[in-house]
Amino acid sequence: MISTPEGYVAQTSTSLAACLAKVPQLAERLGGKPDAWRVEEVGDGNLNLVFKVYGPQGAMAVKQALPYVRLVGESWPLPLSRAHYEHMALSEHERLTGRLVPKIYHYDETLALIAMELLEPHIIMRHGMIGGIEYPQFAADISTFMARSLFFTSDLALSADRKKAMIGAFSGNTALCKITEDLIFTDPYRVADLNRWTKPYLDPYAARWREDDDLKIAVSRLKLKFMSSAEAMLHGDLHTGSVMLTTEDTRVIDPEFAFMGPMGFDVGAVIANFLINYFSQDGHEGK
Amino acid sequence: MISTPEGYVAQTSTSLAACLAKVPQLAERLGGKPDAWRVEEVGDGNLNLVFKVYGPQGAMAVKQALPYVRLVGESWPLPLSRAHYEHMALSEHERLTGRLVPKIYHYDETLALIAMELLEPHIIMRHGMIGGIEYPQFAADISTFMARSLFFTSDLALSADRKKAMIGAFSGNTALCKITEDLIFTDPYRVADLNRWTKPYLDPYAARWREDDDLKIAVSRLKLKFMSSAEAMLHGDLHTGSVMLTTEDTRVIDPEFAFMGPMGFDVGAVIANFLINYFSQDGHEGK
Repeated sequence: MISTPEGYVAQTSTSLAACLAKVPQLAERLGGKPDAWRVEEVGDGNLNLVFKVYGPQGAMAVKQALPYVRLVGESWPLPLSRAHYEHMALSEHERLTGRLVPKIYHYDETLALIAMELLEPHIIMRHGMIGGIEYPQFAADISTFMARSLFFTSDLALSADRKKAMIGAFSGNTALCKITEDLIFTDPYRVADLNRWTKPYLDPYAARWREDDDLKIAVSRLKLKFMSSAEAMLHGDLHTGSVMLTTEDTRVIDPEFAFMGPMGFDVGAVIANFLINYFSQDGHEGK
Repeated sequence: MISTPEGYVAQTSTSLAACLAKVPQLAERLGGKPDAWRVEEVGDGNLNLVFKVYGPQGAMAVKQALPYVRLVGESWPLPLSRAHYEHMALSEHERLTGRLVPKIYHYDETLALIAMELLEPHIIMRHGMIGGIEYPQFAADISTFMARSLFFTSDLALSADRKKAMIGAFSGNTALCKITEDLIFTDPYRVADLNRWTKPYLDPYAARWREDDDLKIAVSRLKLKFMSSAEAMLHGDLHTGSVMLTTEDTRVIDPEFAFMGPMGFDVGAVIANFLINYFSQDGHEGK
């Protein structure tokens, strides 16, 4: 059993209402009595618990970190502090990009729990893209999100002491950075348990990656840059699974991988996700 | 009057013996009674107080930070925390390069005071170079110092979490970094009060620097790298004024500018100091 700090309790859809009722501004937002609140565990988070909560007056989303990777279980511990980094980054994003992120209603450091705006009828962008939905507003919104969040947390905009304070503030988010270091910059180029690809169709591509020394050297250079170049506050996981949207409204969620790193990582992740969708679209249409 | 934390007292050559006598391992090292100890304020530090202390059994150097720049006075405040960063860097240097730095005997965080090995008959390398002394051991020693201190604090040697912990640990040393940002990367290319050059001989060179836009752009790129590229723990002020040596023994001192930055800054500072000495040698010989 993984140990957790005193006061931490993983919430369930039965326990959560009582937990939220203790916070006046949340109770007021939901309205009525806690026994009138409906709580649903969404169950599609890879790392965390995610709930939707509906009251007579209003609704909210509640995200709670578990002391392990939800998708894998207790065999893969992951520190609760990621909620701290997510809240810090989300607050910065709200300050810098306003309407492009969900509003934060409440943060509980002990419970590693964030209550925020429920995004409805928004869907995860990846699903929308696989479904072939066009998002005419997205290019402008994501460009604004990246331009403002990256520029205003870089040396181009901040004084050096404010910048170094941000570097210090995010320097402890190492467990999440390690996931990126492994899953993006190391594992895909070698035999690794977590590698997945469409078999047997992509077997020759996977094999070619494992044997390409030039590629490994090039990726090592990028990995070193990822680890040592503190250019700006990155979202750190800016793929189309971290965007919820409608055709009119775009919101970037889940910045728990945030740290001070090279701007190109966020920008590249967005572009790469478009390319992946583009090249896989034929396959999705064929189904 | 600049305020200082409770317990901080700037030492004088009269007060210091009583202060050191309270620390058993220092008293033991000096030997005999405190009234038998001889204390000299060296008076050549730009930023700090530096004392030599001699007892019947042994001797030591004592360096204390003042809450301002010693050379300028109270009009230029500078945080006492620089002693904390100096001690942290000096400890790392000792661990990584052993005999190439002075031994630390004692560190007092409240007094911002470090007691360390007295280096005698060592002299400041800059004075030796101006005097035309050859140091056959220096190239090997400084190469070893840089290779070991830079490599072993970089991503090439550290795990990512250890590296990020070091970045966090040094991220508060902003006041000292600011001096470098201004005095090396900004002021020399514009009109600034602290600029000094040999007048009138170098006037046209100074004017040319002030008017060279290409140079300013190139230096801005290097400044951005200095501020954002956390490659390794830098000494941060690695010129020939931060080296004390004899023809046989080399010691690197004064790492209070230490922070996690680009390796090239330390390496470049050493090479630049050789070039400056080389080109000014004719002038020194002419005296």
